[in-house]
Amino acid sequence: MSATSKPWGGRFEHSVDAFTEQFGASLPVDKRMAEQDIRGSIAHARMLAAQDIIPVVDAEAIVEGLSQVHREIADGSFCFDIADEDIHMAVERRLIDIVGSVGGKLHTARSRNDQVALDARLYAKDAALRLAEAVNALRSTLIARAQEHLGVVMPGYTHLQKAQPVLFSHHMLAYSWMLSRDMMRVRHAFDAADVLPLGSAALAGTTFPLDRQAVADALGFSAVSANSMDSVSDRDFLLDITYACAVAQVHLSRLCEELILWSTEEFGFITVDDAWSTGSSIMPQKKNPDFAELVRGKTGRVVGDLTSLLVTFKGLPLAYNKDMQEDKEPAFDAIGTLADSLRAVEGMVSTMRVNVDAMRVGAAGGFMAATDLADYLAAHGMPFREAHGVVGKLVLACEREGRTLQQLTLEELKAASPVFGEDALTSVDLDAIVARRVTAGGTGHERVAEQLTQAREALETDAAWLVERLAE
Amino acid sequence: MSATSKPWGGRFEHSVDAFTEQFGASLPVDKRMAEQDIRGSIAHARMLAAQDIIPVVDAEAIVEGLSQVHREIADGSFCFDIADEDIHMAVERRLIDIVGSVGGKLHTARSRNDQVALDARLYAKDAALRLAEAVNALRSTLIARAQEHLGVVMPGYTHLQKAQPVLFSHHMLAYSWMLSRDMMRVRHAFDAADVLPLGSAALAGTTFPLDRQAVADALGFSAVSANSMDSVSDRDFLLDITYACAVAQVHLSRLCEELILWSTEEFGFITVDDAWSTGSSIMPQKKNPDFAELVRGKTGRVVGDLTSLLVTFKGLPLAYNKDMQEDKEPAFDAIGTLADSLRAVEGMVSTMRVNVDAMRVGAAGGFMAATDLADYLAAHGMPFREAHGVVGKLVLACEREGRTLQQLTLEELKAASPVFGEDALTSVDLDAIVARRVTAGGTGHERVAEQLTQAREALETDAAWLVERLAE
Amino acid sequence: MSATSKPWGGRFEHSVDAFTEQFGASLPVDKRMAEQDIRGSIAHARMLAAQDIIPVVDAEAIVEGLSQVHREIADGSFCFDIADEDIHMAVERRLIDIVGSVGGKLHTARSRNDQVALDARLYAKDAALRLAEAVNALRSTLIARAQEHLGVVMPGYTHLQKAQPVLFSHHMLAYSWMLSRDMMRVRHAFDAADVLPLGSAALAGTTFPLDRQAVADALGFSAVSANSMDSVSDRDFLLDITYACAVAQVHLSRLCEELILWSTEEFGFITVDDAWSTGSSIMPQKKNPDFAELVRGKTGRVVGDLTSLLVTFKGLPLAYNKDMQEDKEPAFDAIGTLADSLRAVEGMVSTMRVNVDAMRVGAAGGFMAATDLADYLAAHGMPFREAHGVVGKLVLACEREGRTLQQLTLEELKAASPVFGEDALTSVDLDAIVARRVTAGGTGHERVAEQLTQAREALETDAAWLVERLAE
Amino acid sequence: MSATSKPWGGRFEHSVDAFTEQFGASLPVDKRMAEQDIRGSIAHARMLAAQDIIPVVDAEAIVEGLSQVHREIADGSFCFDIADEDIHMAVERRLIDIVGSVGGKLHTARSRNDQVALDARLYAKDAALRLAEAVNALRSTLIARAQEHLGVVMPGYTHLQKAQPVLFSHHMLAYSWMLSRDMMRVRHAFDAADVLPLGSAALAGTTFPLDRQAVADALGFSAVSANSMDSVSDRDFLLDITYACAVAQVHLSRLCEELILWSTEEFGFITVDDAWSTGSSIMPQKKNPDFAELVRGKTGRVVGDLTSLLVTFKGLPLAYNKDMQEDKEPAFDAIGTLADSLRAVEGMVSTMRVNVDAMRVGAAGGFMAATDLADYLAAHGMPFREAHGVVGKLVLACEREGRTLQQLTLEELKAASPVFGEDALTSVDLDAIVARRVTAGGTGHERVAEQLTQAREALETDAAWLVERLAE
Repeated sequence: MSATSKPWGGRFEHSVDAFTEQFGASLPVDKRMAEQDIRGSIAHARMLAAQDIIPVVDAEAIVEGLSQVHREIADGSFCFDIADEDIHMAVERRLIDIVGSVGGKLHTARSRNDQVALDARLYAKDAALRLAEAVNALRSTLIARAQEHLGVVMPGYTHLQKAQPVLFSHHMLAYSWMLSRDMMRVRHAFDAADVLPLGSAALAGTTFPLDRQAVADALGFSAVSANSMDSVSDRDFLLDITYACAVAQVHLSRLCEELILWSTEEFGFITVDDAWSTGSSIMPQKKNPDFAELVRGKTGRVVGDLTSLLVTFKGLPLAYNKDMQEDKEPAFDAIGTLADSLRAVEGMVSTMRVNVDAMRVGAAGGFMAATDLADYLAAHGMPFREAHGVVGKLVLACEREGRTLQQLTLEELKAASPVFGEDALTSVDLDAIVARRVTAGGTGHERVAEQLTQAREALETDAAWLVERLAE
Repeated sequence: MSATSKPWGGRFEHSVDAFTEQFGASLPVDKRMAEQDIRGSIAHARMLAAQDIIPVVDAEAIVEGLSQVHREIADGSFCFDIADEDIHMAVERRLIDIVGSVGGKLHTARSRNDQVALDARLYAKDAALRLAEAVNALRSTLIARAQEHLGVVMPGYTHLQKAQPVLFSHHMLAYSWMLSRDMMRVRHAFDAADVLPLGSAALAGTTFPLDRQAVADALGFSAVSANSMDSVSDRDFLLDITYACAVAQVHLSRLCEELILWSTEEFGFITVDDAWSTGSSIMPQKKNPDFAELVRGKTGRVVGDLTSLLVTFKGLPLAYNKDMQEDKEPAFDAIGTLADSLRAVEGMVSTMRVNVDAMRVGAAGGFMAATDLADYLAAHGMPFREAHGVVGKLVLACEREGRTLQQLTLEELKAASPVFGEDALTSVDLDAIVARRVTAGGTGHERVAEQLTQAREALETDAAWLVERLAE
Repeated sequence: MSATSKPWGGRFEHSVDAFTEQFGASLPVDKRMAEQDIRGSIAHARMLAAQDIIPVVDAEAIVEGLSQVHREIADGSFCFDIADEDIHMAVERRLIDIVGSVGGKLHTARSRNDQVALDARLYAKDAALRLAEAVNALRSTLIARAQEHLGVVMPGYTHLQKAQPVLFSHHMLAYSWMLSRDMMRVRHAFDAADVLPLGSAALAGTTFPLDRQAVADALGFSAVSANSMDSVSDRDFLLDITYACAVAQVHLSRLCEELILWSTEEFGFITVDDAWSTGSSIMPQKKNPDFAELVRGKTGRVVGDLTSLLVTFKGLPLAYNKDMQEDKEPAFDAIGTLADSLRAVEGMVSTMRVNVDAMRVGAAGGFMAATDLADYLAAHGMPFREAHGVVGKLVLACEREGRTLQQLTLEELKAASPVFGEDALTSVDLDAIVARRVTAGGTGHERVAEQLTQAREALETDAAWLVERLAE
Repeated sequence: MSATSKPWGGRFEHSVDAFTEQFGASLPVDKRMAEQDIRGSIAHARMLAAQDIIPVVDAEAIVEGLSQVHREIADGSFCFDIADEDIHMAVERRLIDIVGSVGGKLHTARSRNDQVALDARLYAKDAALRLAEAVNALRSTLIARAQEHLGVVMPGYTHLQKAQPVLFSHHMLAYSWMLSRDMMRVRHAFDAADVLPLGSAALAGTTFPLDRQAVADALGFSAVSANSMDSVSDRDFLLDITYACAVAQVHLSRLCEELILWSTEEFGFITVDDAWSTGSSIMPQKKNPDFAELVRGKTGRVVGDLTSLLVTFKGLPLAYNKDMQEDKEPAFDAIGTLADSLRAVEGMVSTMRVNVDAMRVGAAGGFMAATDLADYLAAHGMPFREAHGVVGKLVLACEREGRTLQQLTLEELKAASPVFGEDALTSVDLDAIVARRVTAGGTGHERVAEQLTQAREALETDAAWLVERLAE
């Protein structure tokens, strides 16, 4: 394509060569916004006609032509040509092929600067809803596994050392709450994108009597941007959705770390389903939790995507700068990575076998009754710090002798401290230990049952929000 | 301090040396949370008494003792000792000094795991309000400068090339809208922190009949955390406030880039006040916009802080891990850096001299009337792409001849295209060009007046939110 | 493809579905290493035969088959199938298609763990040489432009305020030195990759009597890895090359910032060639330095790539983990981005028009003679701090009266300080000011001439290194 | 301090207030460079005298005064005042207090721009040597532990699944090789800093006849910078050392992840020494590997430091900009964090108890003989892929029946494949399996013995480099 056939070709004397064409083009990335671009152009064309800026008959031709372009892209017959530079020009070029020079009127009162902002916002809103669905699917699965295994005891860890026995359901629900916060960030990102930029033109607004509210209504935007310069240079909404992805991916990396640990021979708490494992090309016995590792590993790329976006915007003067062309790839990558990761984790969690017996055996180790012994003393009037010291000595003695706290006799307890009474032995029973965690939010059976209800309600609230947005 | 006097000393046989004491200690960082720590402990002690877990008289002694600790910290007489490891132990140690062993009862039904989460949330809420105040102060200043210079025309840039004339007020207001989104992120971060974690104990809840809602009410939390394991390992609220800081700092870096450009001899649009400039130790004529450069440079540290936090949490299994001790320094640094940067930018913007004449001269350059010439043709029926080409050729001709578009005669215009009519020359008048940007959000004078009202209303809404929170 | 036809299929009962195939596959990324994979396999097969591990005739068949696979990939007839998972399996599958089951012997004494490490190292070495070429091309251009415009004076800036006049050549050469350091980092990255990992097998070495040195010699590696577990889990060489790319891209972002500034109407120091500019779809007069902006904007993605890699490796236990599959995409992206950016900057710098007159006019502004006036006083015995103060007052006076330092009379100078002698006026002549910077590395004409020689010598040394490596 | 008493105060009319003083000051950070600042100033003063730029007697007074300032800083009697802005002014102010106005001559032919670059380079060189020592100490410890436990078998993992038995010594040595690469990066960072910038003045060089080579010799620099503009704006050496820290910290995070895993009850491979563990304030039985967690957690801050530095330099025009004041804190933080982390890890590794029996028991699990069974078949002519399938089926059968591969009879093997011969059972003996890994770099006993020698030699080479530098 020669320079003179470029949309901005009038001013130039020399041709641009293949390298600059490829280096400058955003088409390979932004063609993913084709649907949004056409949707936005149809709304723009209809408004231009409604405002008598272009004839209705021209608008109709344009809309019809755009619909054909849409069909061609959907059925794969559309020919993407790097010479078009970006999706906006690719669509417009093809439109003019189809409807003739009247197609050129589509660009009236519009610049690529506000057009690309529009497309990116429509894309981000769609992506937020897609992520919301995937987040909710995983929350639903976590809640279902928690419900399924109510009452299963496992070791609770701090510092990866056995700390106190907890319910497996409690552990699963911990992740459902992380994901409910992820959903909140996704919703905030949706709201951030939900403002119409079109009508800002290159940077200063236009001279045409546009009806921006009508375009906002047609495209489902809740608001119209207040300042044209801000409007063409604002990509906060991409930062917000990429940030939401980064935190969610970190959350998934934590769950995956646990799935990997739990499926070691040493822990043995779960067995990952064959469909979600792979083998080794050289070691025939291997069954590797590859997908959990991949999700954990992909945390790097999403954190990298967020860094990338923040760095790109550092120090940019107003209004549009070409640097901003680098905004979409990291955001799209973060969105796609998180969507896939959510699906992979949902697949692993929903199909993993929970090895109830191994968890129970694990919960019996590690002197995890120590806190309850100390609490017993504290409940009987000993300052907690002192109680902590008494029990610490008991643990050390047991460890040296290879005994558990459960194997201590009442006499031995009383020798350690006269505060221990006849009922002291009940404080080391594992099921009783769990049952005693009665504080709101604790791992006691009733509290976890309540929590299941809370988690379901929170999920339903977010699901209702999603349904409402999808219905728009 | 010997190992046996450590709170967890009972179990240990060997002493720890000075290095591990220093390396493991968080006191130099978390002492900034002293006020929050004491506030939380007072609420905890009162609830323990109200629930008959400790005697009222003990609680009173503890509260009185904590109040004294607070006074000692406030007046600088408190002696911070690295051997205390963290602020929680420092406060408790001094408390026991003052009130005797009854002070040890304060730790009943509590762990450092939920205590540190509580302190960090109280700190984050306070910090969010402090940031909100600083953000609003800068918005207010931007709005005031916009009001003060209504009608001043300056060049608007894209790609740092002159694009279209805009109002200086419009440019200032663009930043006020960025800051209004920053305020929204700060508000979200406040909400994220606004959940009580205390009562989660180490990870599983406690065996004591706590009244968590009473503690939440006493401390002004809107909700009680739902899952104890999540509660002690969740630092999303620190990520959220650090992210809010990172985006805001990027916004400030953009404004500072412009202040730096505008105060060059080449642009000359503003003169930074002496109070906000520095000189050179070697070049006597220099007057450097140091503070704008520093704010721009500090973008690195805030982006680094966010990266730091995300990396630290990657792959951590539940529940508490010592890695999480690294959570506070980056968050505190981001908060402090943004607060100072907002103040510095407010200082520069409120005192800078706006060189109205230099802006006007700048606006006359750069063939910025070209778009309006093309719009004229488009408004008279020529497809925009064609109009763009016609005007591009006119610009090229003027540039070669060293003329402006304003110097073209009507005949020359008509020679370029017969579509140009008798009124064509009006399309190159700069004031008229600005006035014609009538779209909502555009730079036209009436639109900017409307926008000033909108910006003030948005500020008032956020100010009301802040006042409400500060009153709690 | 059913699970049983996977290379590790024997152990599995269930099939894997399309999602896991796509999510787990690295083929879309690692197919870029096809050439390296085949090269490595040929060397491996030949060594296996030389060591009598497989029959020579089998090795010959394998080598012949691999050569055919190579041809098919080169001419585009090779069919990449996501079901192959990665490039290693894709090549092996096709090899077995061609040569039959004897092809399976290629994998003797080898694992994908050491194979992928080998391919990545070969790729990194090739990439380092490619980057070295591009770095040198830009250095060469900078030196050529410096040579071409010897003697041209322009303003030198600190804080973007005019500081002291410098030679344009000096400014250009500053970047050649940055790039010479980038070359050093590229060379270090090459050396880091220059170690053969093959023979480490899955993690522990193999039972076969391999001749690793022979493979190293055949493939041009300088050393053989010392520890098989480190060998399969080490990706430092990818970090090193990505880091080299990140710093170089930051350097380019600095140069591009200047190209953007210099091509504003306000500075006007250069005119970017049409071939390296673009226009606006809406503003016909615009000529935007898009490529400089893109290069600056891409700094974000390269910094993000480095962050991504570092995050991925945080906390990975030995030896291979699937997380490591995420190693190639960021490294490849950083390499490709920098290679393209170097070419783009080289294109811009080599073709830009240097506006000598505008530079000279700029150098006359800004009271840049002030330092020399102060130096005059210091050279005549006044303490420098005092001299600084005297000249500062002169500058302030001139600024108020709208005069330049050159317009001061000898009498006025003497009134400011009796230390000024009859020759004082020579200290404000711009050409003399430049000429006086005689320190090694300074902007004096002779010094810059010397520097040109040094820069050429440094370039030649690096070019010789490159030629040597390419000849291997 | 009033503006007029600032070193650049002559030009200014208004005073600067406390906030700008604090915000603009670098003293709290750069006072760590006091020793370097004074060392550099002494060399500068002596050269000024030797070149007859200042009288010898003045230089002597200055050197004597600087020596006194050094003593005051060393003994803590020096009063740091934020009004001094930076360490350079703090030292000069005190110098003038001591020696009178002659002290002002020290700044002749020097700017803070080249002075700060000098100090930072001296600091970076010192820091590199300090890090080199700490890296070598940990290498030495790893080698010692490897030597001490020669012959101890443990499970080798990939994907955290048991893969093949390896020697504990082999595993330890893997980390010594990572650290040897870290040493290489530290050495490169040292070399990057080893260039004298002084003499570049503000940006253009000076008019004084400096002898830069003499200053370089006096201060131990290997080279003199070639371009004054590059010289005052180059911080690559800080990037290089921060990058070296980041990779090393990632390496430590991997080792710490393993120490944490190995000290769980589930793995039980090591017992961390009490001196390097901490307890819990609430759970008396806990013994937490806090220091390993802290080192892993600090990976975030060092990656954040690197990000911070890269971001700060993005897009800065030449030459010095105030943004660059943000260069030291991240570099200093990374250096300090790594130095402490190396010491902590050295402490843990040197004192941990290696639970030889637990490792041996672990090595017997997980069907780790599977590869050798497959290798047996491959060595007897079966294509490896086929052998892999045969053994995969045997593993599956054993797993279902709860048997190990060692429990298979010769008859069962032969039934699985007629290729198994009379000696087939030897292929599942664990000690034999390890012994058979005879490839260079493999885990076979002889290979590991060789590797110990190599590791020691590599360490000695680096130690010699260090001794040579320290002697300078």
